[in-house]
Amino acid sequence: MSPTAPPLSRDLIDSLNAQNLAALQDEYHSLGRVLERRGCAIDAIKQRLLSFSLAQPSWGTGVGGTRFARFPLAGEPTHLNEKLEDCAVVQQLSRITPRVSPHFPWDKIGDARAMLERATSLGLRFDAVNSNTFQDAPRQALSYRHGSLAHTDAAVRAQAVEHNIECIRVGEALGSKAITVWIGDGTNFPGQQSLASSLDRYLESAAQIYAALPPGWSMLLEHKLYEPAFYSTVISDWGSSMLAAQQLGPQARCLIDLGHHAPNVNIEQIVARLHRFGKLGGFHFNDSKYGDDDLDSGSINPHQLFLVFNELVEAELRSPADFDPAYMIDQSHNVTDPIESLLSSADAIAGAYARALLVDRAALTEYQQGNDVMMAFQTLRRAYNVDVTPIVAMARYERGGAIDTIAAYRQSGWRPRKARERRATSAGAGIV
Amino acid sequence: MSPTAPPLSRDLIDSLNAQNLAALQDEYHSLGRVLERRGCAIDAIKQRLLSFSLAQPSWGTGVGGTRFARFPLAGEPTHLNEKLEDCAVVQQLSRITPRVSPHFPWDKIGDARAMLERATSLGLRFDAVNSNTFQDAPRQALSYRHGSLAHTDAAVRAQAVEHNIECIRVGEALGSKAITVWIGDGTNFPGQQSLASSLDRYLESAAQIYAALPPGWSMLLEHKLYEPAFYSTVISDWGSSMLAAQQLGPQARCLIDLGHHAPNVNIEQIVARLHRFGKLGGFHFNDSKYGDDDLDSGSINPHQLFLVFNELVEAELRSPADFDPAYMIDQSHNVTDPIESLLSSADAIAGAYARALLVDRAALTEYQQGNDVMMAFQTLRRAYNVDVTPIVAMARYERGGAIDTIAAYRQSGWRPRKARERRATSAGAGIV
Amino acid sequence: MSPTAPPLSRDLIDSLNAQNLAALQDEYHSLGRVLERRGCAIDAIKQRLLSFSLAQPSWGTGVGGTRFARFPLAGEPTHLNEKLEDCAVVQQLSRITPRVSPHFPWDKIGDARAMLERATSLGLRFDAVNSNTFQDAPRQALSYRHGSLAHTDAAVRAQAVEHNIECIRVGEALGSKAITVWIGDGTNFPGQQSLASSLDRYLESAAQIYAALPPGWSMLLEHKLYEPAFYSTVISDWGSSMLAAQQLGPQARCLIDLGHHAPNVNIEQIVARLHRFGKLGGFHFNDSKYGDDDLDSGSINPHQLFLVFNELVEAELRSPADFDPAYMIDQSHNVTDPIESLLSSADAIAGAYARALLVDRAALTEYQQGNDVMMAFQTLRRAYNVDVTPIVAMARYERGGAIDTIAAYRQSGWRPRKARERRATSAGAGIV
Amino acid sequence: MSPTAPPLSRDLIDSLNAQNLAALQDEYHSLGRVLERRGCAIDAIKQRLLSFSLAQPSWGTGVGGTRFARFPLAGEPTHLNEKLEDCAVVQQLSRITPRVSPHFPWDKIGDARAMLERATSLGLRFDAVNSNTFQDAPRQALSYRHGSLAHTDAAVRAQAVEHNIECIRVGEALGSKAITVWIGDGTNFPGQQSLASSLDRYLESAAQIYAALPPGWSMLLEHKLYEPAFYSTVISDWGSSMLAAQQLGPQARCLIDLGHHAPNVNIEQIVARLHRFGKLGGFHFNDSKYGDDDLDSGSINPHQLFLVFNELVEAELRSPADFDPAYMIDQSHNVTDPIESLLSSADAIAGAYARALLVDRAALTEYQQGNDVMMAFQTLRRAYNVDVTPIVAMARYERGGAIDTIAAYRQSGWRPRKARERRATSAGAGIV
Repeated sequence: MSPTAPPLSRDLIDSLNAQNLAALQDEYHSLGRVLERRGCAIDAIKQRLLSFSLAQPSWGTGVGGTRFARFPLAGEPTHLNEKLEDCAVVQQLSRITPRVSPHFPWDKIGDARAMLERATSLGLRFDAVNSNTFQDAPRQALSYRHGSLAHTDAAVRAQAVEHNIECIRVGEALGSKAITVWIGDGTNFPGQQSLASSLDRYLESAAQIYAALPPGWSMLLEHKLYEPAFYSTVISDWGSSMLAAQQLGPQARCLIDLGHHAPNVNIEQIVARLHRFGKLGGFHFNDSKYGDDDLDSGSINPHQLFLVFNELVEAELRSPADFDPAYMIDQSHNVTDPIESLLSSADAIAGAYARALLVDRAALTEYQQGNDVMMAFQTLRRAYNVDVTPIVAMARYERGGAIDTIAAYRQSGWRPRKARERRATSAGAGIV
Repeated sequence: MSPTAPPLSRDLIDSLNAQNLAALQDEYHSLGRVLERRGCAIDAIKQRLLSFSLAQPSWGTGVGGTRFARFPLAGEPTHLNEKLEDCAVVQQLSRITPRVSPHFPWDKIGDARAMLERATSLGLRFDAVNSNTFQDAPRQALSYRHGSLAHTDAAVRAQAVEHNIECIRVGEALGSKAITVWIGDGTNFPGQQSLASSLDRYLESAAQIYAALPPGWSMLLEHKLYEPAFYSTVISDWGSSMLAAQQLGPQARCLIDLGHHAPNVNIEQIVARLHRFGKLGGFHFNDSKYGDDDLDSGSINPHQLFLVFNELVEAELRSPADFDPAYMIDQSHNVTDPIESLLSSADAIAGAYARALLVDRAALTEYQQGNDVMMAFQTLRRAYNVDVTPIVAMARYERGGAIDTIAAYRQSGWRPRKARERRATSAGAGIV
Repeated sequence: MSPTAPPLSRDLIDSLNAQNLAALQDEYHSLGRVLERRGCAIDAIKQRLLSFSLAQPSWGTGVGGTRFARFPLAGEPTHLNEKLEDCAVVQQLSRITPRVSPHFPWDKIGDARAMLERATSLGLRFDAVNSNTFQDAPRQALSYRHGSLAHTDAAVRAQAVEHNIECIRVGEALGSKAITVWIGDGTNFPGQQSLASSLDRYLESAAQIYAALPPGWSMLLEHKLYEPAFYSTVISDWGSSMLAAQQLGPQARCLIDLGHHAPNVNIEQIVARLHRFGKLGGFHFNDSKYGDDDLDSGSINPHQLFLVFNELVEAELRSPADFDPAYMIDQSHNVTDPIESLLSSADAIAGAYARALLVDRAALTEYQQGNDVMMAFQTLRRAYNVDVTPIVAMARYERGGAIDTIAAYRQSGWRPRKARERRATSAGAGIV
Repeated sequence: MSPTAPPLSRDLIDSLNAQNLAALQDEYHSLGRVLERRGCAIDAIKQRLLSFSLAQPSWGTGVGGTRFARFPLAGEPTHLNEKLEDCAVVQQLSRITPRVSPHFPWDKIGDARAMLERATSLGLRFDAVNSNTFQDAPRQALSYRHGSLAHTDAAVRAQAVEHNIECIRVGEALGSKAITVWIGDGTNFPGQQSLASSLDRYLESAAQIYAALPPGWSMLLEHKLYEPAFYSTVISDWGSSMLAAQQLGPQARCLIDLGHHAPNVNIEQIVARLHRFGKLGGFHFNDSKYGDDDLDSGSINPHQLFLVFNELVEAELRSPADFDPAYMIDQSHNVTDPIESLLSSADAIAGAYARALLVDRAALTEYQQGNDVMMAFQTLRRAYNVDVTPIVAMARYERGGAIDTIAAYRQSGWRPRKARERRATSAGAGIV
C-alpha cells in the first residue's frame, strides 16, 4: 500500500507558516495570560482541539446552486476521485477534516477496495454513507416523484429500501459506521396524502433498513421542515425524528442540520432534548438566514453555533461514556471556491467549540443555581467574546496544517491547475 | 335544586328565530340538494354537529390586553359568578359551549359545592381546571419570578406542585376530569439556566402532580414556543410535550394551542403525529398571525382550522374507540365584547368541523393511493368551499339556540344592563 | 390570417357541459336567492367576473422542480410553440386566461411576427415580457454569477441592461405593454458586497432600461426577500421596490408575488400601501407555506387571497380611473399536470375576486367608522363564507368554457396525446 | 446651580479600578500589537469610542413584564426622580449613557426647570421625548381603545395630536431635540378598519404634530410589525415609515427598533436603505429571538448588532456631514436588575461599534469590487472575532468609569439601599 501523499507541497506550507509563526506565538501567549487570569490553561484547551474532527461531504467539493441556476467553477471536481483529492487538500491544510462522507448514487464506484486505498493514500477515511431517494437516478426502474420510503406503492418503497441497504453494503467496504437517511417525501397540497399513513409507511420502510444495519453501525435520521416538499414533510421536525428513532431501536439516532428548522426555533435546546432522551446522533453544520440556505458555518449567526457547542460540551459532561455525535460540514458553495469555504467553515466550527470549552462551568452552574441571571449570561458571554483564533491556529499548526489556510491554498495554485486538468461542468441547478 | 334558568329571555330568541327561519330553511334545503348530488346527506352532517361541543374559558369572558395596555369594557365580569353568567349567555345562544374551564387562583372560590350548583342552574358544567404558576398570587410565599415546576429551588417547585394538586382537588369537587398544566418556565438569556436540568426538574415536579391524578382524569400538557420567556421555554414544542407525556404515563396527554408554534409550522401534521403516538389530548382554539396572538378562532386562517378538523375526523376514523380530545376556546378578546367573540368563534369552529365532515373520504383515499394529487386536493377544497352556515345554524336552532346569535345577543341588551349592575374594572395589561 | 382554432374539441366541452348544466343552474339560482336577501344581485357579480382576466406564464406550462430534483412529465412542452398550445387549452376551458407572458431567453424566437400569428390563431395574446439575468444563457459573454443589474463590473451591467432592452423590443413586436424585471442580485455572505452601492448600481442600470420604455409601457419591479441570494437581496421588499419605482418615474410600478415576503407579513396591507402611493403594478399569483414555494394559488391560504382581492376592490373604488393592475399566475407545478394546476388556480383566483365583490361595502364602512369591530369582521366573513363556485362556473360557461374544467381536460386526452407527440424532457432541477 | 454629584462613591470605583488596571493594560497592549500588525492603531479606535454615546430610556430603569405578569424588584424606581438617579448610576459607571429619554405621561412632571436642574446635577441631559397614545391615561377624556392618530373619530385624533404637541413643549423645556412617535394603532381582525384610510388619517395627524416641531428638532417615526395590534399595524414596516417621513418633510426621519421586524428580515440592509434615502433617524437597541422581546442588546445575536454598526460606519463614511443618528437603549428588563442590564448592554453596543471600526475598509472595498467573496467576508469576520473588551474598558476607564461596571455596581450596594428607601411596586403586567 502506498504511503500517504497529500496533494499540496509540504514546503509551501512550511514556508508560509514560518512567516506567520512569530505573530501567532505572540497572540497565543497573550491569550494564555488572559485565560490564566481566569483560571484556565490555554494548552488544555488546545489539547481538546487536537482530538476534535469533522467529516467533509463529498458533494460539498462541487459548486452548488439553487433551483434557478448553478454557476460552474473552472476546475471543480466531476467524480469521486477528484472530490477526494479536493477533500485531501482541505484536510492537509486544516487537519480537522480527515473523513469524507459519500453520497450514493452520486459517488457510485465500481471497486470499493480501490476507492478505500485511494482515500487512504490521500490521508482520508470514509464517514457515514448517504442514500439518495429524493431524485430519480438514470435507469432507475420506479420514480420517486411521489415519494420513496413513504410512497403509497409497496414496489417503490421496496426499491428505496433496497437502495439504502446497498448503501450500507458499500459503506461496510469503505469502513463507514453509519448511514444517514434523509428523504424528501412529503406533499405540496393539503390532502395530497394521508399525513398519518405516510408516517406509518415510512416507519415500516425504515425498519427494514434498520434491520440491515451491521453491528456497531448507526442509522442517522435527518429531519427537515420543508423542501423539496412545500406543504408537509414526513420527517419534518425533531419530534418526528425522535419518535421514529425510538420506534426503530437503539442504533437509530437523530441528526441535526442547522438549517432544517422553523424560523426562530431554539436549536441549542433541541440539542439538549435529543441528548436527554439518548438520541443525539450528530450534526450537519452550515448556517442560514431564511431557510435551508446551506451557507458557510457560522457566517450568519456565529453565536448560535457557539450555543450549540455549549450544549454539546454540557452533554459530554453529563454522559461522557456514550457521547459520540457525528460531526459533518454540509454546505452549498454557490459563490465561493468550495475548498475555501470548507477551510473557513472548519475553522469557524473549531472556534465555536474552543469558545464553548472556555466557559467557566463551575461558575456557570453556581450562578444558575442561584438564579443570578446576569452573571450566568456574562459567564457565557465572556467565553464567547474571546478571540480563539490563536488557539485554533496553534492546534492546526502543531498537527502540521497551515496557520493561514486560505492564503496557503491560494498560493498553492490548486484550482487554476485543476482548471487546466479537469473537464468542465455544466450549468443547471445545483444539489446539496 | 333549582331548575336550569338561562339568563336570556326565551321569547326574544324565539321571536328572532321566527324572523330568520324561512330563509334558513331555504338555504338548508338548497344545500341539501347540492350535497345529495355529492352522495352526502345533510341531515347526517347536522346530526354529527348535534353531538359536538366546546368548553369556554372562564377568563375569556373578560376583556384581555397586551403588555402595553388593557382597555376595560363597561359591564365585563369581575368574579367567577359573573363569568359563569356570561358563559351561560354564550351557551344559551350557541348551544355548543356547555362547559366552563376554570383557572386558579383567578377563579378561587370558597365553596365548590355552591359554585357547582350555580353552574348547573345556569345550564353549565365544569371542564378541565387550569393551574397558574406563571404569576405571583397575592400573599404567595415564594415567587415564580425564576420559574415554578422547573425552578432550581426545591421549595418553589414544591409550592407549585402543591398548587396543582389543590387545583385537582377543587376540580374533583366541580366534576372536572382533567387538569391543564401550562407553565411559563424558561429563560431570557443564553446561559440563564441549564436547558437539560430545567427539563429534569420539570419532569420530576410533573410526576408528582401526575401521581395525584384521580382515576379517569387526564393531565393535559400545553407547550408554547415562547412568551413569557423569550430565549428558551422548558416545554416549547410538541416534541418536548410528547416526551414528557410519554414519561409521565397514560393519563398524560398533549394539548395543542393553535398560536403556540413557530412560524410556518404545519399544525395539522402535529395533530396527526400526536394521535399516531396516542397522546392527542385536546385543543385550545384561537387564531394568530404573528405569535400567540389569541385572536378569534378562524378569523385569520380559517383554512388551517378546517385542515386541523380534517385531521381530527381522520383520527377518529382510525381509532374511534379512544378518540376523545378536549376542545376549548382560548382567546384574548382585546377589542370586542367577549361574548360576541365567543359566539362567533364557536360558530367558526363548528363550521370547520362541518366542512371536514363533508370531505368525501372514500374518494380522497383512492386519489391518495393513486397519487392523483390534483383530485386529492380538489376533494378537500370542494368540501372547504361549501358554505356550511345553514347546517350549523339549523343544528343550533334545533337545539334551542339562536339562528343569528350575535343579533340576538345585541337585542337582549345584556351588556348595557351589566354595565349598570357590575363594578368597573381597571386598565392594566391583560392576561390570557 | 387564419381564424381562431382552439386546441380542444368544442363538442366534447358542450357535451360535458350539458351533463352539468342543470345542477349548475339550480345552485346558481339558490345562491341568487341568498344574495338577493343580502341586497346583492348575482347577475351583477357574474357580470364583473366576465370582465376579469389573468395572464399565464409561458414557463408555467412545464413541470417545475426544486434545487434537488425535477420529475419530468411525459408530454410537457419543450418550446414556445408547445407552451402556447397548452396555454390555449387552459384558455379554452377557463376563459379567463387569454394572455401569455413570455420569458427570455427561454422563449427566444426567431420570428416575432410568426409567433404573434400563432398565438392569435390559438386565441391568445401576449402579456408582459420577462427578462432573465439570474442565469447564464449558453454563449453569453459575461457571467451573472456575481450579479447582473447591480454587478460591480460595468460591462456586466451593460450586458444585462441590453438584454432587458432587447426584451422590450421583442415585446413590442408581440404586442406586450410591460416588462417585468426580477433580478437575483444579492449576497450569500455578510460583507460580500456593499449594500448601499449595490442599490446605487441597480438604480443606474434600471434607469437605462426605463429610458428605453416605449410610450404606454410599464416597467414592473418585482421584489423578493431571498433566493437565489441567501444573505441579502438588492430588491428585497416592497419598500425597496417602491423607492426604486419612485426614482425611476411614472411608468415604473411594483409587482407583488405572494410568496416573496418575510414570514407573517400582512400582504394585503402592502397592496393598500402600494396603491396609496400610486405604485401598484400587479400580481404574480401563487401560494406558499414556507418561502417562495410557488404552490397553486389559494391552495394553502385561500383567505389571504380573498383579503388581497378585498384590498383590490377597495383600491378600484378609491381610484377607478387609473386602476389597472397586471394579474398573472406564477406557479411551479412540481407534482401536478401544469394545465390542471393552471385551471384550478384560475378558478381559485376568480373565486377570491367574486367573494371580494360580495362584501357589503356600505355596511363595512359604517361598521368601521363606528368601530363596531365584530360586525366589520362579520361583514367580510359573511362574504368569504359564500360558496361562489356557481357564479364562477356560470360566468365561464357563458363565455364558452367548461363548467368542470379539469374533468373536461382529462376527458380530452390532451396530455397522453402530447406524450406521444412531444419529445421527452430531462430531469435536472426546475426553474420558475 | 449645584455641581454635578454622581450617586456612587468615587473612591469605590477608583479602588476597584486599581485592582483591575494591570490586567487591562496587559490586554490592551497585547491587542494593540495584534491590531498594529493589521495596520490599525488601537488608540485611534479608542479615540472614536470616546465620542460615542447612547441615551437611556427612563422607563428602562424599572422592571418590565409581559401580558402575563410582572415580577417587581425591591428598590426599583417609582417616579422620574428615582429613575434619573438610577440612570446616573449607569452613566457614572459606563460613561457612554449621558442622556435620558423621557416618556409622557409616565414621566409627567410639574416643573420642567427643576427636573432639568436635577438631571444636570446628576450629570445627565435629556434626549428625545416619547409620547404615549397606546394606553389610556387616568382621567383622559377619550379612549385610545380603537386607535389614536389614526382613529376614525376626529376628536380622538385631535386629543392624540395635542398630547404629542404637549410632549414637544415639555421637551423644549428639557433641552430635547426630538420627539419619537410610536403608536399602537392597528387592527385585530380582517375588515376591522380600512387599511388605506387608516394611513390617510395617520398622515394627517402626523402632519399636525410635524407642524409644531421647533426648528432643529426631529420627528422620529418608529415602525413595528405587530403588537399591540395583531392583524395589521398602521406603521408596520420601514417602507411605511419611510413613505410617511417623506410625506411629512425633512425633519421627519425613521427609527429602527431591532425587534420590530418580521422574522428573518435583514435589518442591516434596512439601515443602508434608510440612509441611502436620507431618512435614517436612529435606533432603539435591544435584541430578540421571537418577536419584540426587548431582550438585552446583543445577548441573542451579537453578530447582527455588529453588522448593523458595520452599516452605520459605512453610512458615516458616505456622508459624514449629515450623519447623526439617535442611539438609545430600549429594553424590557424582566428578570434582571435594570441597572445591570443597562450597563451590560451599553458595553455590548460599544463593543459592536468598536468591532465595526476595526474592519479594514480599503481591503473590503477592493475585495467587493473584485467579487472576491471569501476574502470580503473574511475581512468582516476578522474584525468581528476580535475581543474588543480591552478597548471598550480602557475608553471607559479614561473617561472616569469603572473597568468592571457590574462588579462595581454590586459592591456599591445601590439596590439594597434603595430597597430600604423606595416604596414597593406592584405586580401587574409590564410596559416597555
